[in-house]
Amino acid sequence: MPSGHTITRRVEFSETDAAGIVHYSNFFKYMEACEHAFFRSLGTSIADKSTGVGWPRVHVSCDYRAPLYFEDEFRIALRVTGKTRKSLSYEFTFERGDIAIAGGTLTVCCVRKDEAGEMKATDIPVDISDKIKITD
Amino acid sequence: MPSGHTITRRVEFSETDAAGIVHYSNFFKYMEACEHAFFRSLGTSIADKSTGVGWPRVHVSCDYRAPLYFEDEFRIALRVTGKTRKSLSYEFTFERGDIAIAGGTLTVCCVRKDEAGEMKATDIPVDISDKIKITD
Amino acid sequence: MPSGHTITRRVEFSETDAAGIVHYSNFFKYMEACEHAFFRSLGTSIADKSTGVGWPRVHVSCDYRAPLYFEDEFRIALRVTGKTRKSLSYEFTFERGDIAIAGGTLTVCCVRKDEAGEMKATDIPVDISDKIKITD
Amino acid sequence: MPSGHTITRRVEFSETDAAGIVHYSNFFKYMEACEHAFFRSLGTSIADKSTGVGWPRVHVSCDYRAPLYFEDEFRIALRVTGKTRKSLSYEFTFERGDIAIAGGTLTVCCVRKDEAGEMKATDIPVDISDKIKITD
Repeated sequence: MPSGHTITRRVEFSETDAAGIVHYSNFFKYMEACEHAFFRSLGTSIADKSTGVGWPRVHVSCDYRAPLYFEDEFRIALRVTGKTRKSLSYEFTFERGDIAIAGGTLTVCCVRKDEAGEMKATDIPVDISDKIKITD
Repeated sequence: MPSGHTITRRVEFSETDAAGIVHYSNFFKYMEACEHAFFRSLGTSIADKSTGVGWPRVHVSCDYRAPLYFEDEFRIALRVTGKTRKSLSYEFTFERGDIAIAGGTLTVCCVRKDEAGEMKATDIPVDISDKIKITD
Repeated sequence: MPSGHTITRRVEFSETDAAGIVHYSNFFKYMEACEHAFFRSLGTSIADKSTGVGWPRVHVSCDYRAPLYFEDEFRIALRVTGKTRKSLSYEFTFERGDIAIAGGTLTVCCVRKDEAGEMKATDIPVDISDKIKITD
Repeated sequence: MPSGHTITRRVEFSETDAAGIVHYSNFFKYMEACEHAFFRSLGTSIADKSTGVGWPRVHVSCDYRAPLYFEDEFRIALRVTGKTRKSLSYEFTFERGDIAIAGGTLTVCCVRKDEAGEMKATDIPVDISDKIKITD
């Protein structure tokens, strides 16, 4: 079964802007919240200290199709669309009821601090990698 | 001369996250701040009420190459890379000194409320369009 | 029965700062989220367009006792501590398990736009006022 | 001469909310930005790693008198109103032209990690303390 995760949330007032809609930067907070819930659904945490790895974002995009308003309930669905030894790629869809709100992508890299304290790309820990299947 | 604008800012503490670096969503706030300064440099405002138009974001992307830290001073440079009758496209580069931090793109659409109160794509006001030249 | 409301939420990564804890400004977003959930629990919305009233904040405070970390689950409890014809006052407590995290206060004023478009203090709509009891 | 510092900034679009004004939580980001500029004006940084101290917020408040709108230019003035061996207290005023927008207070505590990794209140480093005079 391909890997994915869906969450539902409600727009908070602090997420809106003077145009009366959710500020476009918040869609990236929403995507990340869904990614972190996905990791928790795998029984781990994106910030699991036992692995010593981090997950900086290397590429992101978003297409906006319709606005979200204060108190709107909406769904964010994540699908894993790519997995290499050192990176993961996701696609996200945002929907309110049956209305397509937005679509996004996110590529994250697995890193570990080397002795000099620099972040270096590293293999995804096997425990995590084994649980993540590419969506066809 | 092609249209463009550059601003300098310093990372604020509230823009950082628990990884010790600027949260990736804030790069979209930075791009927008640069776009709005660009409009002011043209002698207008992105929220000029006399024109009655708005500028929702329709597509955005960002590539992250190196992190920004608290109190870092950095430059954001905007270039206009596309102009149609109803939309503008920008490219952004983020640099700290001579270090490339990130690159982004933003496409915005010019809209006006129709009688039913719905936002509809509309021609960019001539006053604004005349001031914006495509970068080759 | 006095009026109150409690919500539970989990710290999101975008709410943390480079000190590794929730940025202090976010406690005010949390208080507001709890207030808005309180209004929904009364069968209405803080942004109910049928009433035409708004609720600007006039005084807020917060005491911080212990930090919140990424992915912490915590409770926010609201109690109504004051009600005048035109204003409401709340007290909030933040707890993670049995640890007191913070305590806050918020006073909001009921306003309505006058003919000149200025916000003026106005009586709280009876429908709302009748549902809100002061906590002794 | 008593210690203080004033900064000027312009409201960014991402700081506004669907009420068309600056979201009340952002006043705390503004206060902190002014505090950090104050530390830089003393020739240091609130995050100076050589001292090993941190400055968690322990009490904050804000009174809101008039709204701030997108692109408003405004001043934030900090005055040091209290200094103990381990804490500092500030008062802030927000003004747009000669209009009083808001007034705030902030008390911060000087802390250092003990051997167990716990944050403990500690004496303000002499270098910093010597530069800060109480405003009468």
